[in-house]
This record gives sequence, C-alpha cells and structure tokens, in this order.
Amino acid sequence: MNLHLDHDSHTPLYEQIASQVRALIAADRIRVGDRLPPSRVLAGELKVHRTTISNAYAELEADGLIGPHVGRGTFVTARPAAAEPARAAPDAGLPPLFWEALMVEEPHTDRLHEFHQYPSRPDTISFAYALPDSDMFPLEAIRRSVDRVFRKEGPSLLQLGERLGYEPLRKYLAGRMRASGILRADDEILITNGCQQSLDLIDRTLVASGDAVAIENPTYPGALSVFLRKDTRVIGVPVSERGVEIAALEEVLAHQRVKLIYSVPNFQNPTGVTLQVAERRRLIQLARRYRVPIIEDDIYGDLHFDGPALPPLKALDQDGLVIYSSSISKMGFPGLRIGWVVAPRPLVERLSVRKQSCDLHANLLAQATIYELARQGLLEKHLKRIRKTYAERRDAMLQALEEHFPGEACWRKPSGGMAIWVELPDGIDASALLDVAKEGGVIFSPGAHFYVGPPRANTMRLTFTTTGIPQIREGVRRLGAALKRIMKSHRARGNGTPQPGRRNAALV
Amino acid sequence: MNLHLDHDSHTPLYEQIASQVRALIAADRIRVGDRLPPSRVLAGELKVHRTTISNAYAELEADGLIGPHVGRGTFVTARPAAAEPARAAPDAGLPPLFWEALMVEEPHTDRLHEFHQYPSRPDTISFAYALPDSDMFPLEAIRRSVDRVFRKEGPSLLQLGERLGYEPLRKYLAGRMRASGILRADDEILITNGCQQSLDLIDRTLVASGDAVAIENPTYPGALSVFLRKDTRVIGVPVSERGVEIAALEEVLAHQRVKLIYSVPNFQNPTGVTLQVAERRRLIQLARRYRVPIIEDDIYGDLHFDGPALPPLKALDQDGLVIYSSSISKMGFPGLRIGWVVAPRPLVERLSVRKQSCDLHANLLAQATIYELARQGLLEKHLKRIRKTYAERRDAMLQALEEHFPGEACWRKPSGGMAIWVELPDGIDASALLDVAKEGGVIFSPGAHFYVGPPRANTMRLTFTTTGIPQIREGVRRLGAALKRIMKSHRARGNGTPQPGRRNAALV
Repeated sequence: MNLHLDHDSHTPLYEQIASQVRALIAADRIRVGDRLPPSRVLAGELKVHRTTISNAYAELEADGLIGPHVGRGTFVTARPAAAEPARAAPDAGLPPLFWEALMVEEPHTDRLHEFHQYPSRPDTISFAYALPDSDMFPLEAIRRSVDRVFRKEGPSLLQLGERLGYEPLRKYLAGRMRASGILRADDEILITNGCQQSLDLIDRTLVASGDAVAIENPTYPGALSVFLRKDTRVIGVPVSERGVEIAALEEVLAHQRVKLIYSVPNFQNPTGVTLQVAERRRLIQLARRYRVPIIEDDIYGDLHFDGPALPPLKALDQDGLVIYSSSISKMGFPGLRIGWVVAPRPLVERLSVRKQSCDLHANLLAQATIYELARQGLLEKHLKRIRKTYAERRDAMLQALEEHFPGEACWRKPSGGMAIWVELPDGIDASALLDVAKEGGVIFSPGAHFYVGPPRANTMRLTFTTTGIPQIREGVRRLGAALKRIMKSHRARGNGTPQPGRRNAALV
Repeated sequence: MNLHLDHDSHTPLYEQIASQVRALIAADRIRVGDRLPPSRVLAGELKVHRTTISNAYAELEADGLIGPHVGRGTFVTARPAAAEPARAAPDAGLPPLFWEALMVEEPHTDRLHEFHQYPSRPDTISFAYALPDSDMFPLEAIRRSVDRVFRKEGPSLLQLGERLGYEPLRKYLAGRMRASGILRADDEILITNGCQQSLDLIDRTLVASGDAVAIENPTYPGALSVFLRKDTRVIGVPVSERGVEIAALEEVLAHQRVKLIYSVPNFQNPTGVTLQVAERRRLIQLARRYRVPIIEDDIYGDLHFDGPALPPLKALDQDGLVIYSSSISKMGFPGLRIGWVVAPRPLVERLSVRKQSCDLHANLLAQATIYELARQGLLEKHLKRIRKTYAERRDAMLQALEEHFPGEACWRKPSGGMAIWVELPDGIDASALLDVAKEGGVIFSPGAHFYVGPPRANTMRLTFTTTGIPQIREGVRRLGAALKRIMKSHRARGNGTPQPGRRNAALV
C-alpha cells in the first residue's frame, strides 16, 4: 500500500494510516476480499512501531471495514457507506488487480532466495556457496562433447523427448546405480532437472496437506523451500557427529505420524557430518518399522576425500523404502540442471507423470552431453581431479581456522563435501559477524539459513570449493580478524567471557 | 497384464483370469502395491464383459490377494501364502510399502501421457503431434552457435545461474515483447522450461483448492493436466469460428466465481481458430469487469501464414490482467525446453521464487544458444522459412482433404499453427477411425483428448508440420479410405445415413 505519513502532523500516525486506508477502500483501490499487509510488514515499510499499525487496524475494524481471518490475516470486509461511487461507464475507473490477494500461498521459498549474500567489495572472498569451482571445469572436453553429440544426433536432441529422460544417459546412470547397489531394475530411474526438482516432485507426489515431514536440523535451505509449506508440519531432528540422531528420530516416529524422512547421509549440508554405517542400518530399520519412506539426498556422495564412500541407505534397503536422489551439480555442472531419482517402480511411474505435467522432460542437449562425457570416462576423471583438489582446500581451510580463529570457536573435519561448519562462542551472532566480515572482504553463510525453527545463531557454514588455497588462507585470516573484533566488542558490552573452547565436542 | 483366455475351455473365463493373476502375483510379476487395471480397461483388453472381470477380482479379493482402495482402484495386497519366502532377519515379515496408498493425488496428468499414439507399421505417416519438423532445423547454424557460446562463456554456462534466466536472453526477449506491446518494464519477464512449466507455475501460484478455472473447450491436453485437479473446477467454454465464445464466457463469469481464464487466441490448439480482434477486446473487458486474470498461451503465435499476427491480448490489456506465455518449442526446438512468461511485476516475482523452489533455474547452455541464434538473426530467418513451408503443407493437406474425404466431413482453414481440426459425420467415432487408420499406416489425434468433460467423439486433429507434402497426400488418402470403410460399416449396421455435409458451418 502506498501510504504517506506526516510525522510532524498533530494527527496521530495510527489515525493517518486508518484514514488513508479508509480512503483507498472508498476509492476501490483496495477491495472487499483483499488482504491487508500483515502489521509487521506494514510497520517495516512505514518505519513505525507495529503497535501503530495494530491501532490503525483496530480503528478500521471498529468501523466495520476490515476483519481478521484466523491464520490468514486481515481482510477488507466492507466499503464505507457514503463513499459508494456512482458508476457512469460500466467499466471505467476499475482499480488494477491486487495480485497479492489473488496468490495462493505465502511462499516459504524465500528460504532459497534469502540465502544469497552479495559481496560488498570487488575483492571479496566468498565462502558462501556450495558450488563447484568453474576454473576446474574440463572445458575443452565438454566443448568437444557438446559438439560431438550435436553432430551425431542434433535433430533428435532439439526435438521433443521422452518424459523419463534421454535413454542412453538413463541406461548409463542405471548401470552406475546398479553397481553401487542402489538400483535393481532399469525402470527404477527418472531423470530430472536436478535434486531441487526431484525434491519438489517427491513432495507433490507424497506429501498431502496436514502431513508431517521429518528433516535433519540444520539442513539444505532448498529442502526447507519445498517442505515448509503453510499446510505441512516439518519436524527438525538434531544432527550429531555421527549424523542425524537416530534416537531423536525414533522419538519423533513413535509419537507422531510422519509421512517422509529427508536425510543427507554423506557430508551433510550444512554440517559436513557423515551418517555412520551402524546408524544407517538403524535408520533403515526405523523406517521399516514405522513404514515411512526416506529421501536419501546424495548430492555430495561422490565428493568423498578420505577413502571410499559408505554404503548408500538405498543399498542397505531391502524393502524399497528409500527414494534415492542425486545430480551432476556438485560433481560438476549445475548450469546444465540434470539430476535423477531412483525409487520403486510405482513411485517412479507417478513421479514421471508429474514431471511431464511440470515441464515435459529434462533438456536433451545437456543430458546427451553428460552422457558423452561419462561414456568417454571424462566424468570419472574429472571427479578424481576435483576430489583431490577439494580435499587439499578443505585441509588448507582447517589449517587456517586453527591459525586465525580464537580457541572458543569449534569445528569438525568433514570427510568430503564442500563445507566446514563452525560453531562460534555462545552469544556471538554469525549474522552480525557477516556484516563486519563483508566490510573486511569475506562472506559466508550464517547458520540461521539452515534451521527449521529457531536457529542457533552462533553457527556458520564455510565452503572451500570455489576458492584457491591462497584465497582460503587470506579469507580465513580476514574472517578471524572480524570475529576477534566482534568478540572484543561483545566482551566490552559486558556480555561476559565467551565459553571456553569446545573444539571436537559435539557441535551441530 | 498379459493374460490368455481359452474361450473353448470348460473353466469359466473369470476363473481363468483369477488363476492367471494369482500366478503373476506368486511369480512376483505383479507385486504387492501394484494397481490392477480397472475392470473396464481389462474387459476391453480381453474383449470380455466387465462382469467377468468383476467376478475374477471378487475371487482374488476373497483369497485376500487384492483389495479395493476407495477412489483409487484395486491393488495387490498380499502374495499367495505358499509363495512367501522364509526370512531370517528380525524385522522380517513386514510387507513392503504400499506406494499407491501413500501417494497424494490421482494425477489427471494421464491427459498428456495418454495422448501418445504409437504407430503400428514402420511406414506409418503421423499427423498426431504438433511438433516442428526436425528436418528443417538449421543444424549447422545451431551447432556453430552452441560451440561459440561455449567457447565464449563455458564456465559461467556450466555454473549455477540466476533464477530469472540467462540475462542476455531475458533482455532480448524483453525487447521482442516490448516491440509487440506485450511488455512495459524489463522486470516483467521470467524464463521457464517452456509453456508447460509456465502453466504449472501459474497454477501453483494462483489456483487454490476449490478454485474454478475457465478454459477453452476443446483445449491443449497439457493445460488439462495442470488445471484438472481433484480439488479444482475446470469450466469448459465452447470455441466457435471466431475463437472462444465470449457470450458463453460471460455467462460463466456472471454466475460463477472464476479464478483464472486460459486462452490460446492464435491458431487455437486443437481447433486452429483465431480469436478475432473485436472478441479480443471483449475478452479483455470481461476479464476487467469480473477482475479475473487471463493466461494468454501464445505458443503458436509466431506461426502465422496469412498476413501479420493479430494484436496479442496482452498488448490490448491496459490493466495488467493478462499473463502472457510463449516458448521456442513450436518455432523450433522443444528438446531445449525454454519458454517465458510476461506478467505484472508482483506476479513475476512470485513465479520466479516458485520456479527457484521447483528447479532453481532453466538450463543455461540452451538459453545461451537460443540467444546466440537470435542475436545473429538466425531465429527470425528460421521462422520465415518454416512459416512458408508449413503454410504450403497446410494447403496441401486442405487440398488432399477435399479430394479424399467424404462430403459429410467438415473442417476449416487455419490461418497459422500446426493443425487442422476435422469434424466427422455424426455417429463416426474418431477413436474407432484411428484403430482402422493405424492398420492402414496413418495416425492422428482423436478429438477426445482435448475435451473437458464429455468429448465430441466425431472430431479429430491432423497436424501438418512434421510430414512432407507427398506424405501428407498419401496419409490423407489412406485416412480417407479408412474413413469411407468405417462409414460404410456404420451404414451397414443400420445406423442411418450420416448427416449431410456441413463444411464451413460452425464446427468446433
């Protein structure tokens, strides 16, 4: 709403607001059935206290013009009697559509959107995103692959394709999944536009209004975007150094009817922890006992640095309880938007019909290119190269943290993936640290983005994949300096000495 | 299911069916959780009476092997006892998950899925799909464009991108849309994975449970996939030779609360009719008076053969009521999966947040390639070429229809697009014609696919874009022969003489 307040006027602010809203309703600029902005939002816009808005709304409600609607907000219920305009031309003077009031659902999807940190200095070093390093892309090999597939089958790659995906890639991935014990029959796989779409399709297929989803806490913001809807319950299950806490999950399953469990067993995002084998088996047993499917998001699975990967949940699952999701976005090429789901046949069938209704099929040129790279062994070769480099960067970041971070901060060495999770001393807010760090030329993701419900404000995620080792050292140095400055002012404000170091204690 | 009945046996047919299904379950060929075909469908397949199937299913249900699930069909619930394998493990004996029962919603999306007609002979001529002709793709130009953009900006095309789309393409399309009066501000455009995704995003953003959508009838099956949900009402509005019937739409709007209108004003799919300018203005006025947004699906808009295109609804809309959707799939390259939406800013903002939650963004390599083609003027050049060729093919098909179709069939000349809509004589079922035509080596789409509610069974859509002129002539000749055969047997069955020709009467 476009309201203009005169702070010098003798008319109280709440009356100014009430009379302007009244005028907007009279003029049909806001109509019966339209929703007014939440008082919190309008207070923010007008830079007044929330009580001022509440008072204005109470005024309008007393006039019978607006009314609350439980759980939905405040709506215009009537027009002021005197202001009913005479209508000359039938169509004339109609106000524009109030789109906000037509929209279905308050999207929680800002979880992904909010996530973006923009650097404030040109030389900013970013530890903010879990992305591959573009400098490591095997460009010439990919360029040749694109060209080759295009020469070989251009016409069919430009034409409409099959909803399940480009057949050669589907077969290749099926073979790879079969070798890891993830897939049993070739029709258990669907190619999607990446893990984000896989989650969305699974949500739309399995999660109905009122359903509950159990999710690791903290977790990937994109999963929160999908599952945190107005009409679902998302239950956060804590994560410890051995992965999601099985005992806590059992408590949840025993007392609440859960429709779906979402887990990232390898190098969990954001904590970097890996679910240990015994816990994997227990998780499968729980799911079996309570008959709850598990989404195994294995997007980081190929990025194991210290020895081979642990067996996927899906390979331990004899009963078809696990829906396995992965993609090529972390091993390499998120811009191509290709991922896949392995699931029992009836579910793959339904997901593929849903996928068709969403966007027909994944784009063919990208699928064929990835297949061509895989066929030539270049995907495996690239994976080996980035595993080695990312492991070195992880080690450099760990070393830099030891050197530049105060003893009161703690973290754990992840055995793969893209990030290190740091717990700052109690009372230190990572968002406040980010503000200072930005000025110092380094950015990261405050932990608050990753939590269901109230976040642990003193947590942060540092990714080590997109920056070279010298930058990692310099970035951590800058970050350590910013942290020390914050801690000093924290102490100066009389907030006491931060907790002693808890390095290597359970921290997530 | 692959069942074989022995009509000469002394064993009743229902027992033969029951015992064969039992064997399939025992052999794990049909598994617990699988859905059995509806009795109607299976009866059709086996060419037995529906009661026979009901009896067989009752038998299996009495054995405890299958069970009905209200509104969802009949499912396998257990395996025959003797076949249950012994299990050692402690959790053993729990039956596998019953996926069908876990799924949210019976998808009506089979509308797209059902649509596929498979040729039964290798030399089949297809008039079934509204696709571009792959033989006309400017392959060498595209290959060079892919290679060029890859060389120029490979690393950023492989990396994660912006949710609104690849900026140069977005700017190019914005310019093109601005020139047609469709777009006013550069931030009114979002790049999607094609019109299908645009419809899905709009549906998820604007259509809530219980809402009604007014849609042209007949219409694009993919729109029915999106809007025909268990919890929405889809109101079909008839289409006449001037496009959607405005008076009928007004009746609907006056008596029902409609959330959204879906229209294809240019070369409507499947009827080929174009909404005339006076009707376009009246449509906008109606939407304005009743405050209902319109989706203008202009996917065929660029394929105008007889003079320039009429003004888009969006260009006539002064009030931001129209959501404009288009794509590159009909002008050329559906395999690349790229389309766009132009809409008022608050809606584009919300759609883009939704898009991000669905799959982050459209794939970058395809977007950059299309931009490169456009930048070099090759997209326009290609458009000119296909307009000319498709127009010639349309004319050849019209001529062949005159020559080979009986006088009782009627059709209209479309001024663009990809298809001709044919009305067969009353009493002739286009699906029955398809069965005969398939054997004769030609396929098409029966009109039934395109209807909301009860279809007009005597309608069919013939596309003329994927086949050369000699094939069009031969295909229509085959089709005319099949039609005459069907009409002859129709008369022989004493169904009277079909209606006299109504060519050029209102026919849709």
